[in-house]
Amino acid sequence: MQAVPPGATIGILGGGQLGRMLALAAARLGYRCHIYAPEADPPAGAVAAQVTRADFTDRAALARFAASCAVVTYEFENIPVAPVAELAATVPVRPGIEALRITQDRLLEKRFCQQRGIATAPFRAVGSAAELDQAIAELGLPLVLKTRRMGYDGKGQAKIAKAEAAAAAFAALRSDELIAEGFIGFRRELSVVLARGADGRIVSWGPVQNIHRNHILWRTYAPARLDDRLRNDAERIAASLAEGLEYVGVLAVELFDCGDRLLVNEMAPRVHNSGHWTMDAAVTSQFEQHIRAICGLPLGSAERLCDAVMENLIGDEVKTWPALLAEPNAKLHLYGKAEARPGRKMGHVNRLYPLGQAPQL
Amino acid sequence: MQAVPPGATIGILGGGQLGRMLALAAARLGYRCHIYAPEADPPAGAVAAQVTRADFTDRAALARFAASCAVVTYEFENIPVAPVAELAATVPVRPGIEALRITQDRLLEKRFCQQRGIATAPFRAVGSAAELDQAIAELGLPLVLKTRRMGYDGKGQAKIAKAEAAAAAFAALRSDELIAEGFIGFRRELSVVLARGADGRIVSWGPVQNIHRNHILWRTYAPARLDDRLRNDAERIAASLAEGLEYVGVLAVELFDCGDRLLVNEMAPRVHNSGHWTMDAAVTSQFEQHIRAICGLPLGSAERLCDAVMENLIGDEVKTWPALLAEPNAKLHLYGKAEARPGRKMGHVNRLYPLGQAPQL
Repeated sequence: MQAVPPGATIGILGGGQLGRMLALAAARLGYRCHIYAPEADPPAGAVAAQVTRADFTDRAALARFAASCAVVTYEFENIPVAPVAELAATVPVRPGIEALRITQDRLLEKRFCQQRGIATAPFRAVGSAAELDQAIAELGLPLVLKTRRMGYDGKGQAKIAKAEAAAAAFAALRSDELIAEGFIGFRRELSVVLARGADGRIVSWGPVQNIHRNHILWRTYAPARLDDRLRNDAERIAASLAEGLEYVGVLAVELFDCGDRLLVNEMAPRVHNSGHWTMDAAVTSQFEQHIRAICGLPLGSAERLCDAVMENLIGDEVKTWPALLAEPNAKLHLYGKAEARPGRKMGHVNRLYPLGQAPQL
Repeated sequence: MQAVPPGATIGILGGGQLGRMLALAAARLGYRCHIYAPEADPPAGAVAAQVTRADFTDRAALARFAASCAVVTYEFENIPVAPVAELAATVPVRPGIEALRITQDRLLEKRFCQQRGIATAPFRAVGSAAELDQAIAELGLPLVLKTRRMGYDGKGQAKIAKAEAAAAAFAALRSDELIAEGFIGFRRELSVVLARGADGRIVSWGPVQNIHRNHILWRTYAPARLDDRLRNDAERIAASLAEGLEYVGVLAVELFDCGDRLLVNEMAPRVHNSGHWTMDAAVTSQFEQHIRAICGLPLGSAERLCDAVMENLIGDEVKTWPALLAEPNAKLHLYGKAEARPGRKMGHVNRLYPLGQAPQL
């Protein structure tokens, strides 16, 4: 693969905060960014050389966009595969179409893990109320019923504790493309964010521990405190998935730590909220690393310069910015979103600590 | 002073790499930037929400620009004072007009140092060939004849070694606003980059050592190796100048280390090339700090996380980017300039070292 040299234009599908932070990292390396997003005034647009406002299904707009870019990436996985695949015929799209297709569908994702010999929660495809009853019979209760696609931050899912509640849960999700997952009694949630280069080299920032509130990531502790065996397992699992996908770019793998073993929860084919700490505490941030990978440049060092605790600023929490700016070891990141709606990610703060001295959970 | 909150628009006069890096730092804190520059496609424009292309003397364009901004700053000092002063009637301009007026004129700058009791090279105002002869008689030879304004990277100056060469040097500079400076036999060049907040608090990154090639900064070693007395002198001098100017923002003070004493060479009322190392090696970069200061936010910590050697990439040196990207401890910054003309600053690289372990000169 020919490297995409600095000065070239990188296309980013999606204009949210991840696209914004990718664009900032790309600019540091001398690239121009072209943001493609359906919404008006996307956060990434204010820091990009060019913005196209159009739907992800607008093939003419996508073709014009592709013609302006040396390489295209996506900042979220819930975009339709077909038009992106069409675009990939004229410009390299990284990570590839296959990674997009698999990771945007919980069922394909879990089957992919199975094929790689990687453990997940037990699961069943559910397309009807009858199949849900069958899944309950096989997996037991409680279980979690989820839409296969478009779910995020706890949206599109329902926990079913009693068989009587199954029909209502099925009806509420209003889809015949569902997945039932056996309920996992995990100790904690981890993730591994890594990058795989165009040359196949993998560089990982190592496992971190994540705390959620209301199904939304609240805090990431970097590094996670893990014994060597689980740490190696986590790294091995994430690397195996990246290799299986012939992945190029940053990949996030969420894991359940069940004490004696790890289960894959889900993957994200992109930079990830649990990797935001790398912006201030690692030699190379996940955003720069993703740009390096998709441009065919050598990956940078993932060495940790300090320990970090990342905390998301959700909705009105962003109003604490004056206090955060006054904390000497805190690095504040705001996404430039005008309206602080409840549940909306408005920014994050990375609190830095000397190596080995981050507060523990 | 009321703080300018994140989400507001910051105006930047000038669209070069300093404006670009300011805009990137502002974006991280959630601000929008409006770049005002005379040239087409300025480097800062590609990362800003808005760009105005107009001359610095275009009062109507400046007025429209001011109306869109909550605060205005400048990324270089060679802009005419009068239109900026007019603009300051409608929007806060930081650092102030007085700092701009004094630092863009070598004669006013040296007189200002004198008033503060701070040593510089001996100097004389030169407006005619006769005054130059007088200056030679008083200061001795060699001396350096410089234009009072618009000089940078060694442009607009001539070293005079023999009295016979004086007339030709005077004619070549084609100006009657000159300054003659006694030649200084210094051991090395240092600089102090600091920030002064709207509350008067001063935070300094400490003295660094600079190496020039062809009158252009080549490398900065951070920190400079200095004994406590000279280190304290350097900090005291820089702080005194910032206070004297009632400065708000990042200020750079270049110093000659003459072994037993320090002389001020010049000041820059802005972020400075010798502060670029702070982007990767300090808790708060000079760019973020300048944004904090001009927005009336608390200043961040200037703590050094690692030692650093910054190297500019001048002209064709930018072509070494593939090798630089492969260095594990190097952070590459490219400015997105299309054409690598000789002498043009195309980017820089910060090489990081554990504290106390940077290579020495």
